[in-house]
Amino acid sequence: MTTTTADDVDQGVDIDQVLADVADVARPCAEDGEVKAYIADLAGMEPGNFAICVTELDGETHAMGDLDIRFSIQSISKVLALVLAMRKVGEGVGVQEQLWRRVGREPSGDPFNSLVQLEREQGVPRNPLINAGALIVDDVLLDHCADPKGELLTLASELAGEELTISEEVARVEEDTSARNRAIANLMLSFDNLHHTVDEVLDVYAHQCAIEMSAAQLARAFRFLANDGVDPATDRRILHPDLARRVAAIMLTCGTYDAAGEFAYSIGLPCKSGVCGAIVALAPKQAAICVWSPPLDDKGNSLAGRVALHELSDRLDLSVFKGPESAL
Amino acid sequence: MTTTTADDVDQGVDIDQVLADVADVARPCAEDGEVKAYIADLAGMEPGNFAICVTELDGETHAMGDLDIRFSIQSISKVLALVLAMRKVGEGVGVQEQLWRRVGREPSGDPFNSLVQLEREQGVPRNPLINAGALIVDDVLLDHCADPKGELLTLASELAGEELTISEEVARVEEDTSARNRAIANLMLSFDNLHHTVDEVLDVYAHQCAIEMSAAQLARAFRFLANDGVDPATDRRILHPDLARRVAAIMLTCGTYDAAGEFAYSIGLPCKSGVCGAIVALAPKQAAICVWSPPLDDKGNSLAGRVALHELSDRLDLSVFKGPESAL
Amino acid sequence: MTTTTADDVDQGVDIDQVLADVADVARPCAEDGEVKAYIADLAGMEPGNFAICVTELDGETHAMGDLDIRFSIQSISKVLALVLAMRKVGEGVGVQEQLWRRVGREPSGDPFNSLVQLEREQGVPRNPLINAGALIVDDVLLDHCADPKGELLTLASELAGEELTISEEVARVEEDTSARNRAIANLMLSFDNLHHTVDEVLDVYAHQCAIEMSAAQLARAFRFLANDGVDPATDRRILHPDLARRVAAIMLTCGTYDAAGEFAYSIGLPCKSGVCGAIVALAPKQAAICVWSPPLDDKGNSLAGRVALHELSDRLDLSVFKGPESAL
Amino acid sequence: MTTTTADDVDQGVDIDQVLADVADVARPCAEDGEVKAYIADLAGMEPGNFAICVTELDGETHAMGDLDIRFSIQSISKVLALVLAMRKVGEGVGVQEQLWRRVGREPSGDPFNSLVQLEREQGVPRNPLINAGALIVDDVLLDHCADPKGELLTLASELAGEELTISEEVARVEEDTSARNRAIANLMLSFDNLHHTVDEVLDVYAHQCAIEMSAAQLARAFRFLANDGVDPATDRRILHPDLARRVAAIMLTCGTYDAAGEFAYSIGLPCKSGVCGAIVALAPKQAAICVWSPPLDDKGNSLAGRVALHELSDRLDLSVFKGPESAL
Repeated sequence: MTTTTADDVDQGVDIDQVLADVADVARPCAEDGEVKAYIADLAGMEPGNFAICVTELDGETHAMGDLDIRFSIQSISKVLALVLAMRKVGEGVGVQEQLWRRVGREPSGDPFNSLVQLEREQGVPRNPLINAGALIVDDVLLDHCADPKGELLTLASELAGEELTISEEVARVEEDTSARNRAIANLMLSFDNLHHTVDEVLDVYAHQCAIEMSAAQLARAFRFLANDGVDPATDRRILHPDLARRVAAIMLTCGTYDAAGEFAYSIGLPCKSGVCGAIVALAPKQAAICVWSPPLDDKGNSLAGRVALHELSDRLDLSVFKGPESAL
Repeated sequence: MTTTTADDVDQGVDIDQVLADVADVARPCAEDGEVKAYIADLAGMEPGNFAICVTELDGETHAMGDLDIRFSIQSISKVLALVLAMRKVGEGVGVQEQLWRRVGREPSGDPFNSLVQLEREQGVPRNPLINAGALIVDDVLLDHCADPKGELLTLASELAGEELTISEEVARVEEDTSARNRAIANLMLSFDNLHHTVDEVLDVYAHQCAIEMSAAQLARAFRFLANDGVDPATDRRILHPDLARRVAAIMLTCGTYDAAGEFAYSIGLPCKSGVCGAIVALAPKQAAICVWSPPLDDKGNSLAGRVALHELSDRLDLSVFKGPESAL
Repeated sequence: MTTTTADDVDQGVDIDQVLADVADVARPCAEDGEVKAYIADLAGMEPGNFAICVTELDGETHAMGDLDIRFSIQSISKVLALVLAMRKVGEGVGVQEQLWRRVGREPSGDPFNSLVQLEREQGVPRNPLINAGALIVDDVLLDHCADPKGELLTLASELAGEELTISEEVARVEEDTSARNRAIANLMLSFDNLHHTVDEVLDVYAHQCAIEMSAAQLARAFRFLANDGVDPATDRRILHPDLARRVAAIMLTCGTYDAAGEFAYSIGLPCKSGVCGAIVALAPKQAAICVWSPPLDDKGNSLAGRVALHELSDRLDLSVFKGPESAL
Repeated sequence: MTTTTADDVDQGVDIDQVLADVADVARPCAEDGEVKAYIADLAGMEPGNFAICVTELDGETHAMGDLDIRFSIQSISKVLALVLAMRKVGEGVGVQEQLWRRVGREPSGDPFNSLVQLEREQGVPRNPLINAGALIVDDVLLDHCADPKGELLTLASELAGEELTISEEVARVEEDTSARNRAIANLMLSFDNLHHTVDEVLDVYAHQCAIEMSAAQLARAFRFLANDGVDPATDRRILHPDLARRVAAIMLTCGTYDAAGEFAYSIGLPCKSGVCGAIVALAPKQAAICVWSPPLDDKGNSLAGRVALHELSDRLDLSVFKGPESAL
């Protein structure tokens, strides 16, 4: 899967060696994290699972570890749902406002499933990457799609370049343990910020979380966001370039729960994490990255994944705040 | 002050024309904003003041408007104080933790001077660009400097390339109207997160806010943060490259009060605003930018300044989320 | 319905005249209040409805106004549900703790249906007279009763001395507009503080709110709480004397939403209000009182009802803080 | 100091025996509490100190324990300051509003020194018995008195029937450790709800907290609030009867920090506690009570004191919610 290009040689950087070194530093950290039991059990995930996959825009891939084990992507699906909703409402700034009237774009400064801000802000969630905002995005999908679950799966499959599936078992567990999301949805309903029934919205949400992908598929699927909205594999435009970079902006400010500032500070890349232990990161115009290690830190992000991204960003000079001179 | 380079010609972009067009769109917006009266009065600022200044790393400058009127830089000084504190505590990750144990790096999700989060989080402010965090930074400066006000002024002057002054009158008004900052400082003191007296800390803060600079000086002074920590005018290293990009990360996630997500989304550049109506923005490896228009929006950011940066970022493709292909 | 007793004559107080005077002062205030439309419509309530009923422990009743119009008692039912739950769990301090482990006894300092405190306090509502607490009480009833709705109606009927009914139409509207209560219930479920399904609990709640009673029936039904827990009409002990006075204590500190302090200050009697516009008040060892006027103030209490109770308490020296020398 | 009256004999209650029994139950509880070190040290208070004093309106006193040790009364002074302020602004409802526009009358539902509510409610504290509210009361005193500290001491001395003193040492420690109160005062200043300087207001507050009284003096001094505002020792009217009972209402709803509901539920008397470990309670038309035991529970109330009042209220049937048939 990995080849060394003339480019890398020129720069004197052996990326595969970098990945190996990064893995050496990051893997042991996983021991201090905690796996979300109910998800791991279902998915056959192991605390020791570990993968890093860097997929460059031209398809060249550097990778190591458990690249082909599929797991439910959980919160990472929020980005795909947002992208689908942005496509559905239309590209113009005016029509996009249909969406942004109902969900904000600010970091929350509170846990991902808090109701406090939601109540203070009258049922308008702070951003589309916390649970409340993701439910609004799903409600918007229900406004525009006959079959949001199907369309999401189709989009994810197309981007991953392979046929994906939804784990009905994970979706069912998700719905059974969704009391807090149900609370959130009902609170938004009480503020008239939900068009469909709570059950319909939670059903979409449970199924999007249960889409199963591998680290390699995730890296591949997210490349379009690093490539001005165009999937390099198919040359298909998924999003307008402006919208693609704006999704990246939301990922950087809101994609890692209440650790977004920390991620921006130490990694400097737009990221989205999920309780499955995966984190997807974007190096604009260069690559999409997925790291995977199930044990989570106290903010809900993959512990070893965070360390790996930090090391990777440092060693390859990827931070968006550093400007255009990375080693990729 | 402006010259057209071969570079620009190659790209077919007339940057001066872009600035003129941007100004045409942005200036009228100022009418919907509100000037902070007490600051404007002192400074002789007018609601109609307007300036844009883009200073490239090589010193080439594109600019228009009221470039030479000096105003008190207010909250923009928080970045300079942070930079000085980072220098003082030392470059290592370990010693930097001296600072980060006392102030966080997360966006606040609350107004810049709120006490709610500060109380919940036991006197540790969310980040160094809200008032509470800036007071901690000043307390750290008092730990390390005999004369923090003097050293800050010296640093700012060096970066601006000109001798700057502090308006004692503005500093006095600042202290006289600082009841809320005094409340914040006392609350942190009650949590044992202040080493010096409230009066000492507020005195540093009042004076840093009262440093007077023009839009042109601000753009010039912030270039080092877009240049890996090295001031291009003097080749002096102000900060380690890693720390420079981390300051940029904090600016992007925390630099524009409770509109950081909005700025990241629509502008995509690390920014810091002040109630003086100026906003400084960084285009890493390319330029530092200052826009100035005193009337503020309801989040406390310059209204026309925000619009101007949005237009500028769009037209010159500057967003850090777009990757390395801007028109500069 | 009203007779003047030798007692009143001795004291030189003409209570009927007092009621007439109180009504003259209070009725016009109703014009500044606002009727909860959805409830009023169903019940055939009119903004101009007004009643005062003072039922002494010996059955002597002074009353005036629309005494016999029945309306859904809404939140006033929370006291009856609490009483039934206290009976069901048993009288001992130890067994009562079954209940008080799940709901507190502190005033909330927040609106009656806020989720903020509930989240901060881990799903344990502050007291049984806010919505969250009332839902816990209903959940406790479901633990102990085969038919909580039926038992509540039986208890209310017995206390009112007449067969009461539940308005299925009001109950249905209640459930249809219960998004926020559903949010609250789900939030408590997410903290494992609900034993039954959200639907079951909301069903009990909707039906208890829809019990229909007149002002005269309410005054009569609440007498036992002013009489050491014994219903004077039947000499049946409903609650242990200690528990009866404790229900009164909860009414005083928590019975009128975020105006409990105001009611204690100006009226000085344990009260419970409902959005139907009724307020029940207790004068221990003396009487139970019901005032009814549908328009509400901004805290959700009957505006004219509050004024009437204030006047009545003043003129008859009823405040519990004044000690045992009222004019009744 | 104690005599048995014919009254007690009639009722078959030996009150001294009741006090002895209550002490047996309550004293051991003190071991689970925690003494506020800085206050205890100064005052020579011991964790084992314990006193109960019941002073009936006619002066008859039942008492036991460390009756004559004086300690700084701390927060109990808030009631005396409120009484003095109510006297100063005048008795009419209209003029009283001068006071109540600046401080509310609602229980807070938050710790006694929280800034959260204060910020949300724009600098108007919830009630005069939390720190913020007490500072407003002191500011009102500064509006009306040339020497508020002197007048407070005079009032307390008159009510105690003995010359009292202020411990300057305690007052100084109070001011030295007042960072949070200083934060609160500055926050209120920032909302324009303070007329005098923060230093002036904190100086009054520190000195009122440092008034030194014994349990016997406290019981005696608070009798007027149980006697329609008239001091039985001198027949001097301190407050209008309506205002006296309203102070009692505020004590019941707000006098014991975030345990007011618990106190109302289990004790049923207006109470005010202080970190000195004393609690004053009122039995309207009957007696004033002081219990003293320095170790505090986690809400800041005397642990053994709370237990003693619970036992005493139960055994003598004192709860205001029980009506006029106590054993006193």
